[in-house]
Amino acid sequence: MSMAAAVALPLAGNATNMPFKAEKKEASLPIGFAGYTFAKYDLDKSIEMMKRLNVLNLSVKDFHLPLNSTQAQANTVMDKFKAAGINVYAVGVIYMKSQEAVDQAFEYAKRVGVNMIVGVPNYELLDYTEQKVKDTGIRMAIHNHGPEDKLYPGPGQVYERIANRDIRMGLCLDIGHATRAGVDPVKAVKQYKDRLFDMHIKDVSLKAQDGKAIEVGRGVIDFEELVEALNKIKFTGFSSIEYEKDMTDSLAGMAESIGYFRGVINCVG
Amino acid sequence: MSMAAAVALPLAGNATNMPFKAEKKEASLPIGFAGYTFAKYDLDKSIEMMKRLNVLNLSVKDFHLPLNSTQAQANTVMDKFKAAGINVYAVGVIYMKSQEAVDQAFEYAKRVGVNMIVGVPNYELLDYTEQKVKDTGIRMAIHNHGPEDKLYPGPGQVYERIANRDIRMGLCLDIGHATRAGVDPVKAVKQYKDRLFDMHIKDVSLKAQDGKAIEVGRGVIDFEELVEALNKIKFTGFSSIEYEKDMTDSLAGMAESIGYFRGVINCVG
Repeated sequence: MSMAAAVALPLAGNATNMPFKAEKKEASLPIGFAGYTFAKYDLDKSIEMMKRLNVLNLSVKDFHLPLNSTQAQANTVMDKFKAAGINVYAVGVIYMKSQEAVDQAFEYAKRVGVNMIVGVPNYELLDYTEQKVKDTGIRMAIHNHGPEDKLYPGPGQVYERIANRDIRMGLCLDIGHATRAGVDPVKAVKQYKDRLFDMHIKDVSLKAQDGKAIEVGRGVIDFEELVEALNKIKFTGFSSIEYEKDMTDSLAGMAESIGYFRGVINCVG
Repeated sequence: MSMAAAVALPLAGNATNMPFKAEKKEASLPIGFAGYTFAKYDLDKSIEMMKRLNVLNLSVKDFHLPLNSTQAQANTVMDKFKAAGINVYAVGVIYMKSQEAVDQAFEYAKRVGVNMIVGVPNYELLDYTEQKVKDTGIRMAIHNHGPEDKLYPGPGQVYERIANRDIRMGLCLDIGHATRAGVDPVKAVKQYKDRLFDMHIKDVSLKAQDGKAIEVGRGVIDFEELVEALNKIKFTGFSSIEYEKDMTDSLAGMAESIGYFRGVINCVG
């Protein structure tokens, strides 16, 4: 190239001297994992995977810490999480079909040292559950399953049963099951905002009962609108990925899901 | 819950009947892989990984198809890509330190059947390279390396040498190396838009020479601004992830990177 050409391009040579903008935007919506994601991995492997994916909030499931654990057993497991920098913010999902199961869930939460249970109490146990919430101060986030579920096929079936109960009773909105049940999770976030305690984040292949679990971003859920809605209601809970595809070989799918969700969060800001 | 309470919550029960919005936004910026990502994986494994990650555009590297391959060898490899639904859109990165190396690169591109080489020709070969571009119609996207590179430490050192040459000579902007060289990739996209042929997408831990390759979204690059810039200039090339961390165990890192980048693309729209 001639000198004349070089003169015609004054900016090119100076590109390395141009200042960067201050810092990229950092979003604040905290991400976690729903413990069921790790159903096929033992505790040590699960911790290793969480560290690798840099997701350090967890709702712990019973296969990593049995519901009937002693305090010593709970301490051992919690010490492992603590040593790995992992914040166990809830227990669950826990199904409760008897008063004994409700008692056990609240005792378990106390042993683990969390102030929230993600649970599924039978309808007839809701009064009893509410009393336990009042007695212990531990919150109950009821989890919606899909259209095939007899109790809570969508978030509406949770909300209508807790909205006039103690304000520490609320909803863990599973956006995949909600979508399969024909409920728009974006609308659900706004509609049930006063009782939205926890989020199970996933994607599904179809807005229909037979929609399959799929990597976040590959399915039908609009995550941009979802994150905008969570920001709008000033959601202060955790958005926990629950990844349910290829469960014995799921690190890549978890990673893609976490990546996509983080990308949207940082983009929406 | 009493009936009175139910009446006070008219929306909850109807949630499942509320219509969804039409469709989520789909972005159009196509994603690929820079072949170097798969340096530690053989051809079959690389194809399997690309299919799993649903990234089906590739700039093929010589370790999967040697530069001195025969036409028959090239056909065999290209048939494998084709059978997997993978579009090989370029060859490279190819380093060219002699006229023979330039000749070989263009012959190689012809055998592979692509119309673009991602390459690094020595300065003294640029006239010769330009003549080959004119003779063959094959485009040359010159790749910037980092601050330690003697030839093209940043995109400016490419651009100033090709801007007044044949319009089929351009830039493969490596945003990680550019960032390590002190060049803002967002500004580079805008500044060099008329010759921007290809993108190597990655993240780095620092805006400095010793910044390390890292999962997209975990480093210092602002991908929202980058995607906005690519949209603004109506970039029609491929944005190819080049993942260079944990290269013998990199599926999860690739997946997280692809996920994050897709999330931002779909969010920016």
